[in-house]
Amino acid sequence: MLKIRVMGVTTGGPLIILLSRRDAEKRDLHFGDRILIRRSRKRITAIVDIVHSKLLPTGYIGMFDEPLKKLGGREGDLVEVSPESKPASIGYIKKKLDGKRLNEKEISTIVADISEDRLSETEASCFVSACYCNRLSMNEIVWLTRAMVESGEVLRINRTPIVDLHCVGGVPGNRTTMIVVPIIAAAGLTVPKTSSRAITSPAGTADTMEVLAPVDVSMRKLEAVVKRTGGCITWGGAINLAPADDKIIRVEHSLNIDAEGQMLASVMAKKHSVRASHLLLDIPIGPNSKVCSRKAGLHLKRQFEEVARRLGMRIRVVFSDGSQPIGNGIGAALEARDSLMVLQNSGDAPPDLREKSLMLAGQILEFVGHAKHGKGALLAREILESGRAYRKLVQIIKAQGGRTFTYKRVKLGSFKRGISAARSGRVKAINNQTMTRIAKAAGAPRDAEAGLYLFRHVNSKVNKGETLYSIYANSSDKLRFATRIARTDSGFVIS
Amino acid sequence: MLKIRVMGVTTGGPLIILLSRRDAEKRDLHFGDRILIRRSRKRITAIVDIVHSKLLPTGYIGMFDEPLKKLGGREGDLVEVSPESKPASIGYIKKKLDGKRLNEKEISTIVADISEDRLSETEASCFVSACYCNRLSMNEIVWLTRAMVESGEVLRINRTPIVDLHCVGGVPGNRTTMIVVPIIAAAGLTVPKTSSRAITSPAGTADTMEVLAPVDVSMRKLEAVVKRTGGCITWGGAINLAPADDKIIRVEHSLNIDAEGQMLASVMAKKHSVRASHLLLDIPIGPNSKVCSRKAGLHLKRQFEEVARRLGMRIRVVFSDGSQPIGNGIGAALEARDSLMVLQNSGDAPPDLREKSLMLAGQILEFVGHAKHGKGALLAREILESGRAYRKLVQIIKAQGGRTFTYKRVKLGSFKRGISAARSGRVKAINNQTMTRIAKAAGAPRDAEAGLYLFRHVNSKVNKGETLYSIYANSSDKLRFATRIARTDSGFVIS
Repeated sequence: MLKIRVMGVTTGGPLIILLSRRDAEKRDLHFGDRILIRRSRKRITAIVDIVHSKLLPTGYIGMFDEPLKKLGGREGDLVEVSPESKPASIGYIKKKLDGKRLNEKEISTIVADISEDRLSETEASCFVSACYCNRLSMNEIVWLTRAMVESGEVLRINRTPIVDLHCVGGVPGNRTTMIVVPIIAAAGLTVPKTSSRAITSPAGTADTMEVLAPVDVSMRKLEAVVKRTGGCITWGGAINLAPADDKIIRVEHSLNIDAEGQMLASVMAKKHSVRASHLLLDIPIGPNSKVCSRKAGLHLKRQFEEVARRLGMRIRVVFSDGSQPIGNGIGAALEARDSLMVLQNSGDAPPDLREKSLMLAGQILEFVGHAKHGKGALLAREILESGRAYRKLVQIIKAQGGRTFTYKRVKLGSFKRGISAARSGRVKAINNQTMTRIAKAAGAPRDAEAGLYLFRHVNSKVNKGETLYSIYANSSDKLRFATRIARTDSGFVIS
Repeated sequence: MLKIRVMGVTTGGPLIILLSRRDAEKRDLHFGDRILIRRSRKRITAIVDIVHSKLLPTGYIGMFDEPLKKLGGREGDLVEVSPESKPASIGYIKKKLDGKRLNEKEISTIVADISEDRLSETEASCFVSACYCNRLSMNEIVWLTRAMVESGEVLRINRTPIVDLHCVGGVPGNRTTMIVVPIIAAAGLTVPKTSSRAITSPAGTADTMEVLAPVDVSMRKLEAVVKRTGGCITWGGAINLAPADDKIIRVEHSLNIDAEGQMLASVMAKKHSVRASHLLLDIPIGPNSKVCSRKAGLHLKRQFEEVARRLGMRIRVVFSDGSQPIGNGIGAALEARDSLMVLQNSGDAPPDLREKSLMLAGQILEFVGHAKHGKGALLAREILESGRAYRKLVQIIKAQGGRTFTYKRVKLGSFKRGISAARSGRVKAINNQTMTRIAKAAGAPRDAEAGLYLFRHVNSKVNKGETLYSIYANSSDKLRFATRIARTDSGFVIS
């Protein structure tokens, strides 16, 4: 038995504990070893680091935050420690690395081991790489989806239909969810929307909503918000929804990779966990978007449809224009401001963001039978222009614990600089990836107030010296850094 | 500027440092971030963990052992800290994950970043997986080899020829190096042998030699030992020889994978780092060995020959019998005892180990022109039987700082149990992998005194109840564990 010593260290990652050299030697444990720790009925697996200083006396186990949170317990509590052999999933990961197909049990074992932190960072990374290099079959994708759902919590709301929406991404500023959710919730639909934070983009929907309301909402609270208002926009990471997926995404993020099979499983697991009956999927297509061609879009559409069919979920897929940013703001606060402008029916609202949101909301209203074919967008516009959508967002914000304000009060980065046109002409193209790079250089997504505000879109006329966009940052260093990139390549093609 | 606080924690892995929450916030740093730390002219990259307890006061940087060793410095020394962007190799790793070929510069950048610990565990793991899934081309293998050599130290001894030997492994007990090195060094050859510790086997040559002498020998000492005695048997990990390779092997080990391209580069880098002019390569072939067929052996032979040719190294490849363990002992101490028995010309010496060692030594003597074609093994036998080989081993042991003793004094595990034949008959086969599994269950390779001692080999006659082999362990638990495995499947086929 060892006593817990709370170290107060966050690693953000794998479960690490400390043992004094003497305790480790007594148990024949070395650094990097895997041990099982038991406290009453709870048990976790963690990796050992060895202390040979006074940092930790003999008889104690030094716990970092992540294992302590999982195991529970306080300073001085007794725990039992025993060596743990390698989990079975290691063999399955090797199998996948070897290019072989996994069966349902193998996949669910891997997912359970990942979600319970029984795999080291190395092992989990190898699984992600293996699935990236040796593509997952449709069976594997469906099993992976189911396993991810089972590894986490599921929403318990007894309503039909339950609507969800998703965009495969790649288009900066494209924050339609902030507008579509209040519109369709105002129409009486149930839409328990959980979103992600930015992975490779300047802002995720969760980051954007967070400008207006807390998104770190528990499952119980989420259920209460949805029961009261019909909708919500929260961070999926806050509830234990497909927890294995978040760990997989973390690995993908560090390498900037995006494996199709895992992406399908990841998206569908989150939808299935909220028990969505109807899913609207937006696939933006454009040369610098995630999906570059109609052919690739069609392939993805079929894949999503097949997974949805096997899960018993209805799906409707919409192809949209992914050739340039949607809306004017890029970055959480700037995108939140755009959404508020649309919902508050401001004359300054970006029309492209408004029209796309109405189209998507209309598709959903038709899909679930709330509007006749071809009449959905009309109904959506009525709901928006009447102010009902904004009132619904206010309800949702309040239910999530936020407070509302007009779009003019949204706080932006305090350092600002305009990037102007090097020549006169017409904007031929705006490169999504360049815009993303500049916004990130300015501090997005970590700094919610950093980003870009576009004054021009494709086909706009512009005179030499006119401002194409402003960069917002919260430090002069970051502003300088972003400006330097923008001056090398503004991302705009003018001719 | 922050002050160093020595934490006294060994992680065995990536470079981790601690910052107080306040210092981290001031610098906009989060857990998992990469930072550059500078102390006078030294600089390292490390990953941030955040402390929010009294463990670390504001103004301090908590250093674990690995970064402290690289950076140097003591408690209270001042260091500068700045955010570090992702290294370029991340993009190259993604390229390889995508199945594309890397060029020489990309490979050398990745290797430098791995050897300098600039990559996280996740990133390094993805590189290893990518090279495993998307095989390396011959060009990539050669560049990887060169980059590994350049990332580390090289031996500076002005002699010709310099001989090296390598076995691709997979056969338990096969500790011929312990015998071949003293024979050929006694013949006047220079053989600066660096070996690995066990990765997936019950013992490596370095583990075995360590029973007799320290193997944790610096480059300067190694050069001195070789200059004095002509040979050495040390642990490659102790000298900074192709350091990136050790990190790659660590990842491979955790998943039990062995990528051919990386293996070629790994072996050849270590040979090239000691400036070997002649390499003898032993490829054991057997159904439960690493190389299972003659076809696979021929493929491997050609690959090795091609890499050697491009590096300007002469190579001779020998195919040997890998169908069963070589020698009687399996496990470091038991294998060291076998080697001593052969070198001390004991009547109990395992003849298969002796004969194979003589064959290999003979091949080398012919290869470098010290013996005529077909006469090498004869010369080797003379050197062995005259006691010159043993005296050379004694010289080497003493030069490395060990002391010699007769094979009877080799200390073995204090718990022992025999596994007996379930029927009478003739031994048809012995499964290498099963023997390995049982020896590891008994505590090998971590416990040098654990392992197996075989009383029977293939084609031996055996009566029901006679002992096939003994298991040695240092705890009754481990003995029981290994015995349970052996009783389910002894690894022997008798008919």
